[in-house]
Amino acid sequence: MISRLCIIGVGLIGGSLALALKRAGAVDSVIGCGRQRANLELARSRNVIDEFTTDPGEAVRDADVVVMAAPLGAAEPLFRAIRGNLAPQAIVTDVGSAKRCVVEDAKRVFGAIPANFVPGHPIAGTEQSGVEAAFESLFDDHRVILTPLEETDARATQTVRLMWEAAGAEVLLLDLDHHDQVLAATSHLPHMLAYTLVDTLGRMEQHTEIFRYAAGGFRDFTRIASSDPTMWHDICLANKDALLNALQQFSADLAVVSDAIRNSDSAVLKDVFSRAKDLRDAHVSGSK
Amino acid sequence: MISRLCIIGVGLIGGSLALALKRAGAVDSVIGCGRQRANLELARSRNVIDEFTTDPGEAVRDADVVVMAAPLGAAEPLFRAIRGNLAPQAIVTDVGSAKRCVVEDAKRVFGAIPANFVPGHPIAGTEQSGVEAAFESLFDDHRVILTPLEETDARATQTVRLMWEAAGAEVLLLDLDHHDQVLAATSHLPHMLAYTLVDTLGRMEQHTEIFRYAAGGFRDFTRIASSDPTMWHDICLANKDALLNALQQFSADLAVVSDAIRNSDSAVLKDVFSRAKDLRDAHVSGSK
Repeated sequence: MISRLCIIGVGLIGGSLALALKRAGAVDSVIGCGRQRANLELARSRNVIDEFTTDPGEAVRDADVVVMAAPLGAAEPLFRAIRGNLAPQAIVTDVGSAKRCVVEDAKRVFGAIPANFVPGHPIAGTEQSGVEAAFESLFDDHRVILTPLEETDARATQTVRLMWEAAGAEVLLLDLDHHDQVLAATSHLPHMLAYTLVDTLGRMEQHTEIFRYAAGGFRDFTRIASSDPTMWHDICLANKDALLNALQQFSADLAVVSDAIRNSDSAVLKDVFSRAKDLRDAHVSGSK
Repeated sequence: MISRLCIIGVGLIGGSLALALKRAGAVDSVIGCGRQRANLELARSRNVIDEFTTDPGEAVRDADVVVMAAPLGAAEPLFRAIRGNLAPQAIVTDVGSAKRCVVEDAKRVFGAIPANFVPGHPIAGTEQSGVEAAFESLFDDHRVILTPLEETDARATQTVRLMWEAAGAEVLLLDLDHHDQVLAATSHLPHMLAYTLVDTLGRMEQHTEIFRYAAGGFRDFTRIASSDPTMWHDICLANKDALLNALQQFSADLAVVSDAIRNSDSAVLKDVFSRAKDLRDAHVSGSK
């Protein structure tokens, strides 16, 4: 299906995509691109990629599909580096956790939203990062959201859809800004809470005992605080408005809970806890 | 070892303890006590308990060990109900997630801290509740914290220690108030964050999409929001001071993160995220 796939940023997501497409026989050859030669050599030795270069312009030259899988902060310089080097029919997609900012980056570099650029976001990942954490089944039964715009060529969207389906994922289309709001709520806000919680506890006087007595629930709750700091720094700035909005709503609600505890307001506490339990039990149960 | 064990509150914790002690051959007979006859009948039909009564005074009468495993809010009325009915050598312990309040309840009812009362807290549990969720290996390789006071008889503490060890747990002693502070940080605060988060998202305009696109990280993060609302209401009020203190520190730190996002302050964001990741990787990894 894909003759020459270019993966820029061969980490957990980029590497797993390459492996998944190889597993499906959906790609002839994969060229990897990144800043660290040692990482690219590791990726080649594991047969994640077939060849590599550290030059993005060279990497994309004969590729029919280019997947940008570097942190969001690298999007604009990468667009600049590949502009003028893409094959005429090449399709470009990305895997960023925020989509409006990537589209704005593309617009700034190309002067308009390119018809062959399909913004994408696989809802998959672990708190691990790097190509050593990549595995071919990462996307199996996971969702990939594509947020094509009016300017996007429908055939480009279809190519990217088929690529992700070949990698094992279920593909859904979503409005760009809607995506950013939903992800701010379900992913970006929880990451802020987990990072802040661990940092808060680490600076408490009793931090040694705190981590010694942390139980299973705490481990699950803070797992996402082991995620890559640079990637999450980039996501915060890339999805600033939606994330600040979610943070503000959460902080106001947490103040209500704090006040209820202070005032021993049983009605409010039972109300919030019951509503949350019912919602979670109804919508988020299962272990997928 | 234990001739007649009385479990007041035959739910996940009380039921699992009875099963674990039976597995170890460490108990001759178990009498269960609770308010709901149907639940007690279910517990007996599953051989979790051997007999039952809904009258706490009657339940404790010939027991050598009494375990109070009802929600924290029931501690004072239960102490009143069993006072005067305990055998002279009977040892009483509890499983509450906050310890100062239970000791105060006991002091109020008995006029002084009883020498044979050993405050305890198994650091185990799931988001499930009820005897139908009980299982004999719940405490295997988990910790149980005992917080004996100066007034506590050392032999009583030893009996409760041996009981928990027979149930598969590792027993640790901790200062009472220190326990309440550490648990406020590692357990009570995270539960507040999870409940509040799910409630916040449930009231957002896009709540349908929010729960539809929630990924694995979100499921782990919000698992504890499926915990029993009444139990957590009781814990909030029982450990009010330590929890409010933890909530205040967390809220202040979250405001710092929010400001850093608003001001695109990369240094602060990377600093907080890196510190949190390093702490968690160092202290909370593993899957126990």
